[in-house]
Amino acid sequence: MKQLSVDLGERSYPILIAQGLLSQPGCLSSYVQGEQVMIVTNTTVAPLYLASAIEAFAGKTVATLVLPDGERYKNLDILQTIYDALIDGKFDRSVTLAALGGGVIGDMTGFSAATYQRGVDFVQIPTTLLAQVDSSVGGKTAVNHPRGKNMIGAFHQPRCVLIDIATLLTLPKREFQAGLAEVIKYGLIADAEFFNWLEHNAKALLARDESALLYAIEKSCQLKAKVVSQDEREQGARALLNFGHTFGHAIETAQSYQDWLHGEAVAAGMVMAAQLSVRQGWLSPQDADRASNLLAAVGLPVARPASITPEQMLTIMSVDKKVLDGTIRLVLLKAIGDAVVSADYSREALQATLNTAS
Amino acid sequence: MKQLSVDLGERSYPILIAQGLLSQPGCLSSYVQGEQVMIVTNTTVAPLYLASAIEAFAGKTVATLVLPDGERYKNLDILQTIYDALIDGKFDRSVTLAALGGGVIGDMTGFSAATYQRGVDFVQIPTTLLAQVDSSVGGKTAVNHPRGKNMIGAFHQPRCVLIDIATLLTLPKREFQAGLAEVIKYGLIADAEFFNWLEHNAKALLARDESALLYAIEKSCQLKAKVVSQDEREQGARALLNFGHTFGHAIETAQSYQDWLHGEAVAAGMVMAAQLSVRQGWLSPQDADRASNLLAAVGLPVARPASITPEQMLTIMSVDKKVLDGTIRLVLLKAIGDAVVSADYSREALQATLNTAS
Repeated sequence: MKQLSVDLGERSYPILIAQGLLSQPGCLSSYVQGEQVMIVTNTTVAPLYLASAIEAFAGKTVATLVLPDGERYKNLDILQTIYDALIDGKFDRSVTLAALGGGVIGDMTGFSAATYQRGVDFVQIPTTLLAQVDSSVGGKTAVNHPRGKNMIGAFHQPRCVLIDIATLLTLPKREFQAGLAEVIKYGLIADAEFFNWLEHNAKALLARDESALLYAIEKSCQLKAKVVSQDEREQGARALLNFGHTFGHAIETAQSYQDWLHGEAVAAGMVMAAQLSVRQGWLSPQDADRASNLLAAVGLPVARPASITPEQMLTIMSVDKKVLDGTIRLVLLKAIGDAVVSADYSREALQATLNTAS
Repeated sequence: MKQLSVDLGERSYPILIAQGLLSQPGCLSSYVQGEQVMIVTNTTVAPLYLASAIEAFAGKTVATLVLPDGERYKNLDILQTIYDALIDGKFDRSVTLAALGGGVIGDMTGFSAATYQRGVDFVQIPTTLLAQVDSSVGGKTAVNHPRGKNMIGAFHQPRCVLIDIATLLTLPKREFQAGLAEVIKYGLIADAEFFNWLEHNAKALLARDESALLYAIEKSCQLKAKVVSQDEREQGARALLNFGHTFGHAIETAQSYQDWLHGEAVAAGMVMAAQLSVRQGWLSPQDADRASNLLAAVGLPVARPASITPEQMLTIMSVDKKVLDGTIRLVLLKAIGDAVVSADYSREALQATLNTAS
């Protein structure tokens, strides 16, 4: 088993990565301080992993809550459902919530944990690639507002992240590929060597080869853990992790979270950010092509959907969380492995980038 | 002007107390880091103080949101209204929210600030006695769940608390008296000398004498700031501030927050806690009588409403935030000025205490 650490003083926690972890009864019990656990999952994941997850908390009293599956349920209404279940079950401040599922389940469960009785413990059991390499690590929790993704949320760190890569074997191909977008992101913003490795191992990853998966997930979690340890609340370097996300969120919001997956939108967003970087003269066209080619090779979109207009994109982007005093700050590339946050780009270059559709 | 400090490292902030503070244009501008302010208030307070509050932020861009007045609106639905206004106005992470009103406005605005875009700044401008001496200081923010008060919330400290005691002159008598419950609470749990002063100055306070008010508010804020600085997240000593509140919350919840004011429920709750302390042999009957007599002297109830049954009380108390692993922990008195958190009381004594109604 690989064990990484997110170093945040007394709020530090481990990331455990291995094949078959979830099949070990009691493996999570020591991360629960009280006696009560409530596992929150969805209708897709429950039949596959809920029984194992209950066993993982052997020795504790475990309740479960199964929610509908999908980003469109990541809203204040479903939060009410979670609060209702907690109060109906008379769960007190000593409860530990466990998020069993993808990013949506993790974000919602984490936000419930951040706000139920002003904050209770939670653990992350991510079962999608995207959640394993990105959303389960770092304590960002949120729900969506109809007019903006993750607009309502909190920073609340989990007590533990348990990544069982065996869960990836049941993941639909499209979702698996969407998760690769975030893996590729780490190479693009912070590690040219890793990007190079990804170019050479894309096929092994697509075949869900165990050792390739373990390496890619460990590397991604390492990069994320380092950034989060340095900048928990996104005052600086953590913002680089939003590469492709301002464009991507605009796509998702325009589609009411019902069409493209998050990773797909981010893939197109990263290409847009790379193209804008080229237009600024910051990134070579060759490097932008490498980014675009790798994303395409793993089956991801590399341009916004034609059904969304440039005007729609710009309107939604202007209410993104990265906006400060009216200016849209974007993560742009200087080279593969070297990203910057900037508001210092030409508006014409942005407009030209938005005009390009698939 | 009196200036106190809540000492919490880089999250420290001042409490400013004086007569007529709010009439000084620009007095709050230096506590706003960005350019945008949104003042959240209610239909009762807006006609009285919104114009002054806007002036208090001179030099900033100020928007306003006027909500309906009342504890029954302190819920997830009204939160949605606040989020909508923030998103419609394209407010970004640099916005500062300002809570202008009583405890309900402060708690909701604070929780919105804690969760909008994962946390933005806010300032407190409490206009009721209860908010000035209690809820505006210490960073507890929350909304109610239909089955439990303040069940959904966060710890989020304001940047500044501005207390203009001139606002108390427009406060309805009943609300003013309800605020005195929390003032008396500080004497009961932590300061026998202050309790003694309150016994001798109850009439001056009821007459809203300026110097008596200044002293009582300063003393209350001092005691609260000290406790919060020591125990921000209520791991220990801060729980003492909940004296009377577990009983009180049960009364409020049973009435769906529509009948007694919070301070009235807390007054009755404090008498119940004192009576339980007497039944335990911890507090002298004479001291319990002094507590009860002072509360009655300022026009507050000293027993639960007869319309609520002991069974209802107990059921609601068992989902209170102070419950840990199934046990109701209560704040009880050893003497006036000396409180303890305990689960070590007899269940029969609790039952007998609950059986007593007005």
